[in-house]
Amino acid sequence: MGKREVRVGMVGYKFMGKAHSHAYRDLPMFFPQTARPVMKLICGRDEAGVKQAQQQFGWEGCVTDWRELLRRDDIDLIDINAPSDAHKEIAIAAARAGKHLFCEKPLALTLADARDMLREAEAAGVTHMVGFNYRFAPAVQLAKKLIAEGRLGRIYHFRAWFLQDWIVDPDFPLVWRLQKEVAGSGSHGDLGAHLIDLAHYLVGGIDEVIGMSETFIKERPLPSSMTGLSGKGSKDGPRGEVNVDDATLFLARFESGALGSFEATRFAPGHRCTNAFEINGSLGSVKFDFERMNELQVYFTGDADDVQGFRRVLATDPAHAYSEAWWPPGHTIGYEHTFIHETVELMNALQEGRRAAPDFADGVKCQQVLEAVDLSIAERRWIKTSEV
Amino acid sequence: MGKREVRVGMVGYKFMGKAHSHAYRDLPMFFPQTARPVMKLICGRDEAGVKQAQQQFGWEGCVTDWRELLRRDDIDLIDINAPSDAHKEIAIAAARAGKHLFCEKPLALTLADARDMLREAEAAGVTHMVGFNYRFAPAVQLAKKLIAEGRLGRIYHFRAWFLQDWIVDPDFPLVWRLQKEVAGSGSHGDLGAHLIDLAHYLVGGIDEVIGMSETFIKERPLPSSMTGLSGKGSKDGPRGEVNVDDATLFLARFESGALGSFEATRFAPGHRCTNAFEINGSLGSVKFDFERMNELQVYFTGDADDVQGFRRVLATDPAHAYSEAWWPPGHTIGYEHTFIHETVELMNALQEGRRAAPDFADGVKCQQVLEAVDLSIAERRWIKTSEV
Amino acid sequence: MGKREVRVGMVGYKFMGKAHSHAYRDLPMFFPQTARPVMKLICGRDEAGVKQAQQQFGWEGCVTDWRELLRRDDIDLIDINAPSDAHKEIAIAAARAGKHLFCEKPLALTLADARDMLREAEAAGVTHMVGFNYRFAPAVQLAKKLIAEGRLGRIYHFRAWFLQDWIVDPDFPLVWRLQKEVAGSGSHGDLGAHLIDLAHYLVGGIDEVIGMSETFIKERPLPSSMTGLSGKGSKDGPRGEVNVDDATLFLARFESGALGSFEATRFAPGHRCTNAFEINGSLGSVKFDFERMNELQVYFTGDADDVQGFRRVLATDPAHAYSEAWWPPGHTIGYEHTFIHETVELMNALQEGRRAAPDFADGVKCQQVLEAVDLSIAERRWIKTSEV
Amino acid sequence: MGKREVRVGMVGYKFMGKAHSHAYRDLPMFFPQTARPVMKLICGRDEAGVKQAQQQFGWEGCVTDWRELLRRDDIDLIDINAPSDAHKEIAIAAARAGKHLFCEKPLALTLADARDMLREAEAAGVTHMVGFNYRFAPAVQLAKKLIAEGRLGRIYHFRAWFLQDWIVDPDFPLVWRLQKEVAGSGSHGDLGAHLIDLAHYLVGGIDEVIGMSETFIKERPLPSSMTGLSGKGSKDGPRGEVNVDDATLFLARFESGALGSFEATRFAPGHRCTNAFEINGSLGSVKFDFERMNELQVYFTGDADDVQGFRRVLATDPAHAYSEAWWPPGHTIGYEHTFIHETVELMNALQEGRRAAPDFADGVKCQQVLEAVDLSIAERRWIKTSEV
Repeated sequence: MGKREVRVGMVGYKFMGKAHSHAYRDLPMFFPQTARPVMKLICGRDEAGVKQAQQQFGWEGCVTDWRELLRRDDIDLIDINAPSDAHKEIAIAAARAGKHLFCEKPLALTLADARDMLREAEAAGVTHMVGFNYRFAPAVQLAKKLIAEGRLGRIYHFRAWFLQDWIVDPDFPLVWRLQKEVAGSGSHGDLGAHLIDLAHYLVGGIDEVIGMSETFIKERPLPSSMTGLSGKGSKDGPRGEVNVDDATLFLARFESGALGSFEATRFAPGHRCTNAFEINGSLGSVKFDFERMNELQVYFTGDADDVQGFRRVLATDPAHAYSEAWWPPGHTIGYEHTFIHETVELMNALQEGRRAAPDFADGVKCQQVLEAVDLSIAERRWIKTSEV
Repeated sequence: MGKREVRVGMVGYKFMGKAHSHAYRDLPMFFPQTARPVMKLICGRDEAGVKQAQQQFGWEGCVTDWRELLRRDDIDLIDINAPSDAHKEIAIAAARAGKHLFCEKPLALTLADARDMLREAEAAGVTHMVGFNYRFAPAVQLAKKLIAEGRLGRIYHFRAWFLQDWIVDPDFPLVWRLQKEVAGSGSHGDLGAHLIDLAHYLVGGIDEVIGMSETFIKERPLPSSMTGLSGKGSKDGPRGEVNVDDATLFLARFESGALGSFEATRFAPGHRCTNAFEINGSLGSVKFDFERMNELQVYFTGDADDVQGFRRVLATDPAHAYSEAWWPPGHTIGYEHTFIHETVELMNALQEGRRAAPDFADGVKCQQVLEAVDLSIAERRWIKTSEV
Repeated sequence: MGKREVRVGMVGYKFMGKAHSHAYRDLPMFFPQTARPVMKLICGRDEAGVKQAQQQFGWEGCVTDWRELLRRDDIDLIDINAPSDAHKEIAIAAARAGKHLFCEKPLALTLADARDMLREAEAAGVTHMVGFNYRFAPAVQLAKKLIAEGRLGRIYHFRAWFLQDWIVDPDFPLVWRLQKEVAGSGSHGDLGAHLIDLAHYLVGGIDEVIGMSETFIKERPLPSSMTGLSGKGSKDGPRGEVNVDDATLFLARFESGALGSFEATRFAPGHRCTNAFEINGSLGSVKFDFERMNELQVYFTGDADDVQGFRRVLATDPAHAYSEAWWPPGHTIGYEHTFIHETVELMNALQEGRRAAPDFADGVKCQQVLEAVDLSIAERRWIKTSEV
Repeated sequence: MGKREVRVGMVGYKFMGKAHSHAYRDLPMFFPQTARPVMKLICGRDEAGVKQAQQQFGWEGCVTDWRELLRRDDIDLIDINAPSDAHKEIAIAAARAGKHLFCEKPLALTLADARDMLREAEAAGVTHMVGFNYRFAPAVQLAKKLIAEGRLGRIYHFRAWFLQDWIVDPDFPLVWRLQKEVAGSGSHGDLGAHLIDLAHYLVGGIDEVIGMSETFIKERPLPSSMTGLSGKGSKDGPRGEVNVDDATLFLARFESGALGSFEATRFAPGHRCTNAFEINGSLGSVKFDFERMNELQVYFTGDADDVQGFRRVLATDPAHAYSEAWWPPGHTIGYEHTFIHETVELMNALQEGRRAAPDFADGVKCQQVLEAVDLSIAERRWIKTSEV
């Protein structure tokens, strides 16, 4: 690409829209060497809503039809964070219009759709990225570094769980994230997808899986309004069927021979956002919990006999990824910073004319595992990821 | 039974023999109202070894043939903590001799054997108990109480992992716990069995399972000596095949509909003895980690909105099981105390002429799950526990 | 004031300048109902440096003489975060020019200076605020709320420690924070000041103090460059005397009768930024550690007997201050957010024409304790804060 | 001494009497190489009470007059754990009778008394030990080892706090520990004494101190019964004055130049027995909290840049003191074990004919600091320990 600015048109303006907007807004202040995202147009179907978002988030203008973004010459990148059922159509049209792509996860509602998106993006020769933001926590980057440098040795175990509790009340309403038509799936695609991507990133490809899922609360009040993860509904009003999973667990065997255990649930009281994993290798282990996202617990078998133990590393030192852009050691960052770092990677990829990571191929790979797990649940047997 | 003393003959004098001996020795001091175990005879095949143990542990005498214990009129209870392959023969003979039974877990090498043991014990009309000592940590007792009183509501999730790291060195020798003929299985029967019993105790029966296992290190040096969990072997000496699992994971569906996730491994560096579980219910959650065995993390959905969070409860208050026998609040106890509490239950059962808990039926139930998991691994499909 | 915009001129552009700039920049996106800070001019003595900061941080223009800010009609608020020795002159001149004031802590190098500043600001009738940003962590706000609502009962103890380790290396250079002429004091004024303000905010006035301090490393290499908290210097080059305290501790008696313990040090290896306190009251306790700034540990004596324990409250729920402006529960925020919240308070105060909190009187009150401690060290006796 | 048995007569049979009895009882089983304590006679004023204790704890006989123990030829060691006001008379008489001495802390009610006891013990040529049991937690031993080996470098800071909450209820009765005549002091002598001894053990001599104390609740119901730390009293019955400190804090300067901060309180809700310290040195830091007594947090400045952090060392590995006598790594021990290890030291000292550590000189040294603090409170100025 070679230019120092990337002009962005974004579709979606709710939870993810806010996170992405902020990333664009903050990036130039903390990463001045990186190509600068220019916040051109934001798009949403509700005119008043998107107008309000435009002003609040700081976009130059707003539109209600995403096709308009594709027609504009002064837009380089289309950022898609509308509900999941809209990803495919927008992404393919944008690719065909020669726009670079940044799409929130899950890439699509089905593996087939995700593959179409990848194929079209590749055919169009545009840069594409999928929003697995948790990769970009400095503590996760540290885990990656330790593994890549061989400091954990041969990996034996990856265990991960993404625990939330926002729908544990049976009267919590049937928001879009609980509707299969819009969300594709429940905990599995929303939370499990992040774990799968972290597994791919940190340990590698998954060979086979077997899963189990459950919808604990089968009916919920229809919502009268929704916002962020939340929503309102009348306890005594009409109810609708929940047709996504409340929880999905699966076992996995990695191509490397490592064993994996995955669990995604929205029924774990006390866990607001426990996106956690542990990795055990022949030379050491690491543990991460997003609720303490600045920390990585690190253990080395090679430490002196009398002082072996997990170290609580605060990933805010100059030795840690991105930290020099921020504050002195010990001055922590938060959730939103994962999006800023993700955007740095995207800007750098565009600037350098290289592939971004994670890209749509990573999105497809994730979708493949999600779908293999679904199939394993339906058929009650192990499924090779190569089968789907 | 009705008498105030229980005369014990014990088979085994290593790690578990030491733990049991200490329990007998300490019990009368801290639980003076409980029937008193009298340490009559200890039995082991190695004459010098058992003699030394007798004196060190405080038994009245020692023998090298366990049959002698059965012939003695002054022995009421046979305590079996010899290696697992010896459990069945001793237990059945002891039951036939009218002796009460206390057997370490796993009850036997196979489910069929365990069932034989249960049948014989029942036929003989003796009291029988199996050594699932972790039930008796006060923090675990608190978890049980909260669930039994409905304070966690409907249970959705049970996830448990027993992580150790004592054989992560590939040159650690092939001790008996790594030999199928003696140990029955590896992590699965040794560590997983404890998790399964805790699941049964806290959540209830398991309907179906599917598992996965691995032996990461296939050959190890033959040992020249063994002690406790440890052993010595020459790195350059002859090697033998490891024919037990280094790690076994499985998913489970409980009869109640709750979802279960289990993992047992000896390949988790940094974890000396992480026997941990978490339970999520509609009204709250609990978390336990044996490395901090005096603590239970407790969360209630009903707490005031602004102060919701896991409470770190130190189970040493008068409101907690067994604690008044010990020290003032905050003065913690350790691993060995689980055996003392277990023995209190056994003495009370004998005294009151009632069944002990956990008994051989619990041992069978655990073995059934272990074997269902093994079958699910062999056949690569879900197995109902009722199938085995 | 009544207008919806506040036009800012800022003096200083390093660590604090960056934090303040970001707060102005982010505020409108997350607090759209709050009066909007307009980033007019940034001022610094080094022309190239301030120019670079202006562009990176997003100010409209830059100047090298702070007097220019006072002459401008289109500036409402002067933000002073230059080194501490410059605070007084700028603040008084600005007040006289009718500008509202936002001054970083410590307000001044001496209590007398701080009092002058307060007097002038009051005389000028402008709004004034001092930058004790840690008040604005949601977890600290929760502590304040629990105390204000009487939920901790009568307060018995306040203990606090601010531990850092960035100068533990004896060859770390003699940066400005280690020079009395510029910084006023060392750990005491830099770190201890924050603890004192938190004590005032949470527990109330301090009646008397007695302290102790030490400079462990008496000489350090002269620095060749400085940035943020860091700096570079040659180990073998010329050295200068360190004339500030490396560590200062003091005991305090609050006006309420509560007992206080304070410690500020830069010689605590492993602590990057442990700004921590614990408060014990008749009905409960709270604990805070800035390295886990989203969390407050809360204990209530009134909890049911069997589930008493510190709760780890993640202050990201709707019930917590500021949290609805950010992300869903469990999605944490970081250090920089304390500045945004602080700025919200300042904007609201200006908007509503009321006093800001903390204001210069709080700055004076803090300085009074700092100076009382210094005097107690010099005279080796208890000093009433009313004495200074 | 040279013999393989030490015959013990013990005065006191409540909380400490139970802890000591258990240590004598358990020692031979776990430390078979150590000289064996023989539990001869236990002494208490209440005949029924001591008789019951004798049987429960396992002593050969009991008496109600401690003088009888001194007359017996078959008693080598007098263990004094009666209330503190009785220590001096018994200890001196026992020394004169040629008995070895093991005395609970505090050695005496006053420094003068403690010095008398030391002088008499030395004059009699007997072995003497004082019961600072917390030294003997393996995690504390590890801290000692790291410091002794220079692995923490030059020590800058020792901060310690012993927090309890058992009298926070204003209606908790006026038990003997709250009466100056019997207990000598309150938190200061009971809890602070332990901190002071740990400071001496780990960091060295204290040069000067200044303290502060408070009795928050001035009157309490008279007790109708007492047991352990607990007691019962009628809320509406007669009340008596509390004439000991509820809390005492002090600052200290060590002879080495290190700075010390000490706090002992019984008014810290949520803390059952938080006996905690942190030590910062030029090369690293350690942290200990007795509520997690098996753990030591250890930090080294020399760790690789990207993995610096406090390690949570579970002091149950073979590399840790005493651990090989117990259970495999990760199988924790508890409060009572500190007494067993303490007794091992005592038995070894007697066996080897050497001084025990800590001995009466350590008790005097501790008393000296306690009394210097008291004087500093009375005179409101720094007191050199050499002044008292």
